[in-house]
Formats: sequence, C-alpha cells, structure tokens
Amino acid sequence: MIFLDNASTTKPDKDILENFIKYQDDFFNPGALYKTSVLINQKIDGIRENIVNLLNGNTLGSFIFTSTSTEANNIIINSSVSNNKNEEFIFSSLEHPSVYNYAQHLISNGRKVHFVKTLESGEIDKNHLYSLINSNTKLVSIIHVSNETGAINNVNEIATKIKELNSKTLVHADGVQALGKINVNVSNLDYYTISSHKIHGLKGIAGFYTKNLKLLKPYNLGGGQEFNIRSGTTNAPMIFSFYDTIKKAIENQKNNYNYIKSLNLFLRDNLQLIDDIVINSDLNNSPFVLSISVLGLNAETILNALSEKKIYVGLGSACSSKKSGNRVLESMNKSKAEILGNLRISFSKNNTKEEINEFINALKEVVENLREKLK
Amino acid sequence: MIFLDNASTTKPDKDILENFIKYQDDFFNPGALYKTSVLINQKIDGIRENIVNLLNGNTLGSFIFTSTSTEANNIIINSSVSNNKNEEFIFSSLEHPSVYNYAQHLISNGRKVHFVKTLESGEIDKNHLYSLINSNTKLVSIIHVSNETGAINNVNEIATKIKELNSKTLVHADGVQALGKINVNVSNLDYYTISSHKIHGLKGIAGFYTKNLKLLKPYNLGGGQEFNIRSGTTNAPMIFSFYDTIKKAIENQKNNYNYIKSLNLFLRDNLQLIDDIVINSDLNNSPFVLSISVLGLNAETILNALSEKKIYVGLGSACSSKKSGNRVLESMNKSKAEILGNLRISFSKNNTKEEINEFINALKEVVENLREKLK
Repeated sequence: MIFLDNASTTKPDKDILENFIKYQDDFFNPGALYKTSVLINQKIDGIRENIVNLLNGNTLGSFIFTSTSTEANNIIINSSVSNNKNEEFIFSSLEHPSVYNYAQHLISNGRKVHFVKTLESGEIDKNHLYSLINSNTKLVSIIHVSNETGAINNVNEIATKIKELNSKTLVHADGVQALGKINVNVSNLDYYTISSHKIHGLKGIAGFYTKNLKLLKPYNLGGGQEFNIRSGTTNAPMIFSFYDTIKKAIENQKNNYNYIKSLNLFLRDNLQLIDDIVINSDLNNSPFVLSISVLGLNAETILNALSEKKIYVGLGSACSSKKSGNRVLESMNKSKAEILGNLRISFSKNNTKEEINEFINALKEVVENLREKLK
Repeated sequence: MIFLDNASTTKPDKDILENFIKYQDDFFNPGALYKTSVLINQKIDGIRENIVNLLNGNTLGSFIFTSTSTEANNIIINSSVSNNKNEEFIFSSLEHPSVYNYAQHLISNGRKVHFVKTLESGEIDKNHLYSLINSNTKLVSIIHVSNETGAINNVNEIATKIKELNSKTLVHADGVQALGKINVNVSNLDYYTISSHKIHGLKGIAGFYTKNLKLLKPYNLGGGQEFNIRSGTTNAPMIFSFYDTIKKAIENQKNNYNYIKSLNLFLRDNLQLIDDIVINSDLNNSPFVLSISVLGLNAETILNALSEKKIYVGLGSACSSKKSGNRVLESMNKSKAEILGNLRISFSKNNTKEEINEFINALKEVVENLREKLK
C-alpha cells in the first residue's frame, strides 16, 4: 500500500497512540470538583498557553479545543456574524469546504460576501483582497496553505495590512495544512485553526487560537466547557495527545520539510517521463502537496486504476466526495482538461523514495493504458 | 482511589482501548474515493443500521455520529426550530444542561417554551406533560434516565401518548444514562441520544438515532459528512470503537444491572449508619445513580473532604461546575437543606463491595467531623 493522500489524513504515529492509551488514566471528567479533576483542568489550561506560545500568539489570547477543524471554522465564522446586515465578509476561493460552504450559507441568508481572486500561482491576489476592505469588513478568512495545491498565503503579513486598512476587521486563517510543515506565526491574526489528524495525530481533536475570547459566541450549548463556547465533556486524554502531536510536528518540522521536499522534487523530475502532465503547484509551495493534471483523462478513472494497485492519491478535496479541487483550479484559470485530469499527491514523512518510484511507474502504466483505450 | 462518579464519566475498558489502537489501521479518510475508503464507509453505514437495531429503532431511521452527546442534543433541538414563532417546545426540568440551556436560549429568543413538572419520585409528571401538548407543539425532549437521581421516564410509552395528542410533535429522549443500563426501545421516538464515555468507551464519540433524516438541518457546515448534518472528517476508528462499546454494554447489561443493584442496596442499607441522611432516589430508579442529601452540611465541603481521601463522588451534574442538581432537586420539591447537602453517588461495574464499605466509613467520619465543627 502506498498512501499519497496525506493532505486528507495521516496515519497516527505509534508513540502518539501509545501515550494516548496511558493518558486514559486521566479519564476523569475535568468539569468535576474533586482534586484529580481540578488538576487535569489546570494541566489543560497550561497546554492552551503552551500551544498559543508554539503558534507565536498573543499572550492574552487563548486556545479552544474542538472535535474537528470543521467545527473550529464554523465556530469562528458563526461568532463573527452579528445582526448588522451591513457587515461584509471576505473569503478566498481556496478555502476548505468548512469555510467555503459557510460563505455560501451567508450568501443564501442575504449577507454581503466577497471572494478574493486567485493568482495563477495558486496564492490569493493580495491587491484584490486589500481593495475589498472597507469600514464594514467584519471578517476575512484566508487559508494559510492550500490543501489543493500547497500554495502559501502569508496570512500574518496579510493580517497586518488588513488591520492598517480597518483595525476592527477580524482575520482568520485556516492553518490545518501549515502547522508542523511550515513556520507558523499568528501574532497579527485573530483566529487560527489547526488539526491533529493531518500531522500524524489522532482524529477527533482540533482547535483554534483566538486573540480575544470575548469575541466568541456560544456554539454548542450545555455544561459551559471551553469558556462556554463549546460545551461537551472535556476530552483530557485527547487534548494531551494533541499537544504531543503538535510539539512533535514542530520539533521535527525542519527535517520533515527537507525530506518531503526531496520526495517532491524527485516526483516532479520523474513526472516528465509521462506525456502531457501539467504540474499545478508552484516550486515555492509547501512541498507536502503536489497538484498535477493528466491531460485528456478523467482523474477519477486514474484514481480508481491506481486504487486497484493499492496506491492512494487524492482528487480535489478528499475531505468530502464533492470535488472542491474544481473550484480552486477554476479560480487559478486552469483549463477544462487541467481540471478534469486533476490529481493531488500529498506526502508524509512515512513515504519513501521507493514508493514514489513505484507510484511513477504505476501512474505511467495507468495513463498510457487509459490513453491507448481512448485511441 | 474509589471512583463513585460514573454518571459523569467512566474509565474506558482495556479491550476497548486495545481494539481502538488496532482500528487505527483504518486511519483513511472515509470521504476519499479510493477502494479502502469506500469499504470503510460501507462498514460505517452497516454500523449505523446495527445501532438502530440494537436500539429497537425504525428500520427507515438512521444514526448520526457526533463528538459528544451535547453536540447531538444541540443538533436535534436546532433542527426542530423553524421560523414559525407560534411553535412550542416542551422540556422537563430534569434535562442535562445541553438540553436545558438550549431551552433557556430559546426563551431568550422569545420562543414559547414549557417545562414539565416533576413528581416527588423524580420522574416527570406525565399528566402535566400531556396537558401541555397542543397543535403547536413542535418538540418534546425528556431525559430517559435522570443523571441526578436515576429516575426513569418511560420515554417510548410517553412518545406514543404524545403522538396520539399531536401526531406531528417530534419526541426526543436523552438516553445517555440509559443505554447499556436499562432496556432501550426507541420505536416510537423521533430522536434518541447516546454516548460512549458513560459506558466504559472512549470520550470523543456519541450520536443519535433519528427516525427521519430529512427533518434534520445542517449543523456543522463543510464537507457534507453525516448526511450533510455534521460535516468534519469521519472518525472511523472511533466509530468502530463506539460500536464495540455499545454492543458490550448491551450484552452485559443484565449482569451489570444485577451487580450494580446489589451495590446500590448495600449502600442504601449502610447509609442508615449515618444520622440525618435523606435518600432522594426511588428504589425503582436506575440503580446506577444514588442521590443522597446530608442534612445540615454543604455537599461541596463533604466532596472536598472525600476527595482528600481519594474518594470521588458527584455534586449535581458533574458535566459542568454549575450545579444543575439544584434545579432537579428543586423541581422535586426538596427542602433547602436537602439541596445544599446533595451528593450523587454513581456506580460502575468496576466498583466493589469493599469500596462501598470504605466509602461508607469515610463518609461517616467526614460527616461526623464536619458536624462536630459546627457545634
């Protein structure tokens, strides 16, 4: 099995799993009043602070734990919407469905929503973004690293410029594909979303940095956990495990980056062995994601043929069967053939050069066979 | 350590944890299009059906996975609220904060909300409930087993009667304290909430039965998972583990019930060794919860003194530091002294008769010491 869909999810590390089991000794409900629960609660609050520090956040900020990054993104956007129908929202076309579909929901509720243009490189068009900011701009949400192409938006710098244009505008960045892969600095951001299962941690835990807890609205109502924003029994073992995952990813970031970069370059070089393949990801992108288009073929057919060989690659956003990749590539002015034949190859530290080699041979065989049939 | 706060949360079983680790082999994103993900998705759909069967649900119904029962309850109530301001909502005073605080939220939004009276036994006043039903009644939400006293409301029978009065009224029951403890039959209910961590499973997974998927509204927007109700990467290993947990709890239900009943009766008998203790839980209640009141003392002081001896009991709803126990006991017409001195002892299969004995001795010592100081 060759797993090259690591932007979709990753295999949890053995040590992460082992420690998660140990953390079950702290199964207690952190909301209880007895000593052991109070201590667990204190430990969790310490972890919040430490995560804020690891993200280079404002020391007055905090961190809210959620079950998924989708939930985190929903809480952030939901919190920013008030009864003032004049307020405006700005999103990029590169956003994950949890942001993009919320934007569509706002539009269907008659709210003012703008979408930032995308450059051909896959980054947002910053000048277009800045031209959209006015005194009514309530929230800007920009993905840090595109899950489709790996394009990097310098969200912290962008936030600084936005604040110069309107100091009251809230700026959110979805950092799910950035954390542990490229440097993260949230100092000028209001919100930043991260997730565990994209960096070899467990599924079921994610969260977001917030510069100001007071701007958030209750989302799940109940026992008042997570500062009354996200009620539901606090999952201490999962939070401890998430913290391990974050620390490990950041500690090993440089080594992993260099290793993945070498796999990425090796793949890029060898893709030239196959005719009519376009690489959609810029060389400056995060090397963890490589978007390619196999011209003249339907990507889904290629994906299925590779799947028969136990080689797994992505198609658009694999967070759902709906292909958000189309939307992203469309915004990059890609042709119909480039969109139809679009595959996403995403790497992890567990991939080997041998696997990439095997993948190239398999892709070559599959593509040549399919093209032969079409003749 | 003696843990007698099992209505708050329970220690996950070893075999459940071991299998959870094995299930990480299926770390793949079930939303992806390749074969392994498609198979995982099919397995999850099979589990939905099996859970519906285990709950004696309607075969046309389904099961939605959530991260917590709080989230499940929020999704259910949120789905039932429409723009029609004439619709009415009925809740009991026994509800978990995730339901009760949503009811308060509806009131603050100007919606029509009724609360059912509670009998002195701790059950809801069914006649009062039926008198509240009219043609505008949209949703009734009644807890199956009270987390405070263990009082049992026969929710399936109640639902049948409600449907006779208004066939369009939706009926929800929170079964978090019922599943695996008493028999569950959701055949006449529209919604039924269950949770993993209350029955020796992992925290981070819960869900609800729904008779009709079409009545639900999207809650978390994004990739469209869980029938577009609850977007966010599907957590296959956690779902597999939840299913194990449910099956195991139901398979061992009769044995566990009888064992817990014996511990409960042993505790009841021996509480007579301590002066001025009132037992608030009826003998017909679920034996897993025993609510007592130590007259003349503040329960929090007792809890802290027991905590020093590593004996952990509950105080009101330990799902939060806010004492919903007060509300429940008030609705039962309990005196101020009974409310002030209210402790919740909740059992699990892991408790032993020796532990109960040790608890009684400790409680006696603590209570007598505290009363001595007050003299």
